[in-house]
Amino acid sequence: MAELCVNSVLVTGANRGLGLGFVQHFLRMPNPPQWIFAGCRDPKGQRAQDLQNLASKHPNLVIIALEIADPASIKAAAAKVGERLGGSGLNLLINNAGMVKPKMLEAETLEDMTETYTTNTAGPLLMGQAFLPLLKKAAQGSPGSGLSCSKAAIVNISSIGGSIASAFGWELMQVTSYRCSKAALNMLSKCQSLAYKEHGILCVALHPGWVQTDLGSSAGHAVSQGQQNFA
Amino acid sequence: MAELCVNSVLVTGANRGLGLGFVQHFLRMPNPPQWIFAGCRDPKGQRAQDLQNLASKHPNLVIIALEIADPASIKAAAAKVGERLGGSGLNLLINNAGMVKPKMLEAETLEDMTETYTTNTAGPLLMGQAFLPLLKKAAQGSPGSGLSCSKAAIVNISSIGGSIASAFGWELMQVTSYRCSKAALNMLSKCQSLAYKEHGILCVALHPGWVQTDLGSSAGHAVSQGQQNFA
Repeated sequence: MAELCVNSVLVTGANRGLGLGFVQHFLRMPNPPQWIFAGCRDPKGQRAQDLQNLASKHPNLVIIALEIADPASIKAAAAKVGERLGGSGLNLLINNAGMVKPKMLEAETLEDMTETYTTNTAGPLLMGQAFLPLLKKAAQGSPGSGLSCSKAAIVNISSIGGSIASAFGWELMQVTSYRCSKAALNMLSKCQSLAYKEHGILCVALHPGWVQTDLGSSAGHAVSQGQQNFA
Repeated sequence: MAELCVNSVLVTGANRGLGLGFVQHFLRMPNPPQWIFAGCRDPKGQRAQDLQNLASKHPNLVIIALEIADPASIKAAAAKVGERLGGSGLNLLINNAGMVKPKMLEAETLEDMTETYTTNTAGPLLMGQAFLPLLKKAAQGSPGSGLSCSKAAIVNISSIGGSIASAFGWELMQVTSYRCSKAALNMLSKCQSLAYKEHGILCVALHPGWVQTDLGSSAGHAVSQGQQNFA
């Protein structure tokens, strides 16, 4: 497998958990990206402190205000990233931001279903649309005919919880709204792969493993394992 | 296979297309159900004319006002059905109502995603919750330990379009919001099957075939084929 060589990457939900792990991973690479865009809701807020500390030491790390449930915020972020990149494209979009509301099936509501779907499924759709011009540009500017994360790619962070076959962890957590949103995200990834293949953009859904984050709880594995699965 | 013998059934989206086909099928059975509840948005409207004509000839057919995107409407329908059933339960709930907005991936919006998901995925979840007491009652009142449509069942009408593996019809219709909602509906069916098994309720997702309806267009097969697949 060729070594991952990404010139520019955007990670959503980058202020904590797996997203922050991705950012740290990219910063530590022997050949780090020229641009690492870290999307988070409130770049100046207390919850983005870790990102702020990293950005003060790494000039290639740019924190971008991004609320993936808000189409206007996504468009503004795409414009800002495009500006920073000058004439270059974006190699890698990691749709990592996600949410879960732990509920029993009987307690799920229309509001839970809609909110979770908006963040976990519709958000990655809108991100793909908004960043498509930059991803296309990266694909066009990259040599070779194959698809790869080093060229142009959308990576949707899914979950084993989205596998209809596995029913992983049902006894522990029913989380139907989350499972439905992740099954739908897997379908979205398929649709994106079919639509964007002609543009030279790789589209995949990844289950990163169960990692120790706010979302995954302490029952997960250490976050570095999730990174290893991704790398 | 034992013959289908349903004492009571509720079909959503019953005023046209596949839903109306189901109602006609049940009415024509050698041993028709004692109660056929036909849910539709506007029971007195022009679009429910076929149902009204059938109901005037078949006293076992009851038209129920039902908007599956509205939790209050679902609760009211469950109360009305329960009242009509007296002390009996509901054997079979067919979540058939669905919608599609034909769009290319690039043209999908947050509103499309949310609206389609609400009707195609959240609706069946809420229906299952609201009718659970009646389905439980049917299961308790039925002899035998197995699961069956004659005892107590939720049948979610899904689609081959919800199959991540198949990508059926992609070149013809991208319909990403529909595909995502149906993949999620398949997951919901799995969650319902896990949660409701202990109550003796069978839960399945069915692809009825591509049928000639307003939703399926004239490219589909005659609606009777869909019925055969279901029966």
